[in-house]
Amino acid sequence: MRLDYDIAIIGGGPGGLSAAIYASRGGLDTVVFEKGLVGGQIVLTADIENYPGFEENLSGFDIADKMKKQANNFGTEFKMEEVLEVKPKGKIKSVVTNSKEYKVRSIIIATGANPRKLGVEGEARLTGKGVSYCATCDGALYRDKIVAVVGGGDSAVEEALFLTRFARKVYIIHRRDKLRAIKLVRERAFRNEKIEIVWNSIVKEIEGKDFVENLKLHNKEDDRDFDLTIDGVFMYVGIIPNNKLVKEFVELDEQGFIQTDASMSTNIPGLYAVGDINQKVLRQVVTAASDGATAAFEAEKWIENTKDQ
Amino acid sequence: MRLDYDIAIIGGGPGGLSAAIYASRGGLDTVVFEKGLVGGQIVLTADIENYPGFEENLSGFDIADKMKKQANNFGTEFKMEEVLEVKPKGKIKSVVTNSKEYKVRSIIIATGANPRKLGVEGEARLTGKGVSYCATCDGALYRDKIVAVVGGGDSAVEEALFLTRFARKVYIIHRRDKLRAIKLVRERAFRNEKIEIVWNSIVKEIEGKDFVENLKLHNKEDDRDFDLTIDGVFMYVGIIPNNKLVKEFVELDEQGFIQTDASMSTNIPGLYAVGDINQKVLRQVVTAASDGATAAFEAEKWIENTKDQ
Repeated sequence: MRLDYDIAIIGGGPGGLSAAIYASRGGLDTVVFEKGLVGGQIVLTADIENYPGFEENLSGFDIADKMKKQANNFGTEFKMEEVLEVKPKGKIKSVVTNSKEYKVRSIIIATGANPRKLGVEGEARLTGKGVSYCATCDGALYRDKIVAVVGGGDSAVEEALFLTRFARKVYIIHRRDKLRAIKLVRERAFRNEKIEIVWNSIVKEIEGKDFVENLKLHNKEDDRDFDLTIDGVFMYVGIIPNNKLVKEFVELDEQGFIQTDASMSTNIPGLYAVGDINQKVLRQVVTAASDGATAAFEAEKWIENTKDQ
Repeated sequence: MRLDYDIAIIGGGPGGLSAAIYASRGGLDTVVFEKGLVGGQIVLTADIENYPGFEENLSGFDIADKMKKQANNFGTEFKMEEVLEVKPKGKIKSVVTNSKEYKVRSIIIATGANPRKLGVEGEARLTGKGVSYCATCDGALYRDKIVAVVGGGDSAVEEALFLTRFARKVYIIHRRDKLRAIKLVRERAFRNEKIEIVWNSIVKEIEGKDFVENLKLHNKEDDRDFDLTIDGVFMYVGIIPNNKLVKEFVELDEQGFIQTDASMSTNIPGLYAVGDINQKVLRQVVTAASDGATAAFEAEKWIENTKDQ
């Protein structure tokens, strides 16, 4: 049977791109499907200062672009098509996109995760009108304005620091009395005069006519409601895995992240998963890239062992 | 009790350097002990073309140097001391070097692996006199000479290709009838006119007075001994883990590689292991770097949770 590619990689973030580098360098006919911008979530990050080897701080966009070129140099094809369905069983698998059905031997799922929504009133209506999930994308719109960041982890505090480049005041609204972010980042926030942390508080509602104007907050400690006048609010309250394509047949954990073994294999032979969509200890560019390398290496062996049968 | 550092990392290869970047960026007082050259095994590699993000091919040395600078920027200290003993039990741990005993809260083992020796007559006597384990180090000494590479995996074939830049003829001596190296690399070797593969053959003895002159080989297929006149021989027949410091108390697999869980924890709380010394699917710069990031992240949590007890 004539196949379209040896291997299809779904998603063009660091996990997918690293898999593409390894798979195409390993001699496999490789395609990456990415419906949006290559790079995935990292293009939403202004500076990445901890990807080992880049001592000058590159943007997420730049790192993704370098990985894409590297994969291209080894022969990876990129297709800007939306994958609608995956048929992963058997030795010949299918990837159905909005333009055609591709036959391949192996599939790597690298569809990542998306920011979690708060789920409060006003959030959906005002998204793009003062409600944002990406400080890198929208931060510059808030020059000399007042903004709030919701969350207390690394992303929340790092992006709050980034927003101080533009905004004249940045509130961090956190439901606990302690930030989860690493010490270096926490201390940078404590030292920054533009940042004020609103402890023990949750957002109840986002108000505004055509644009965000006010947050209705609730302080859990003294059980009190209060208002905060702001021009924009950025949500950093966790991520949800993009598992729509595979959730019917792949083993997931309680939050919907894919469970793989150390070789990035799912429960279906020849189907691998890498990066943020996986259940894992640490979600970073380097851990996703490592997953991608491992999955491609395993896929290569799997293809070698099954193709003549 | 006054401690010297929060965390000691033993070994300055990609695993150790990545752990240092993450640990020091995370606010931990971090020291890396490396008795030799920072970079570990990768400084023995001429071009690294598959570390994701470096589309220009950097040398192993350059990548290690960049990682070292990045760790330095976050405050990591580097000590060129040989670690003689590790006392990993309890909340306060010790690292004993040739110059003093350091008290720390957590230890990451990143001592890597070393090339395996063939174990044949003449090998030890002629090491440095035509017997080499590092084409990058010694390749240029063999300009217009005839050399042999022993092995059939990625490293063997890649280094054979590298040696064709200098030598006029490169034999690959492989005990099987098929190379294990990935397809792209295999095909490059098959296409290269300077390379000749000696199949199904093992080295029985290395001969030479002051310098390597001849290999005594045995062909297993037709059970025949034969000679090969060469000027140098490079061994790429696998690696052995540098587990001397920890083998008495850490769980190892049959080959002596350390067994960790997904968070890079060994069986001893607060003691982590990363990179080539671990039992793992794929030994590459990016997988070691991923291990290092994960171990530092876990060590940080462990230190946070135990330090006030």
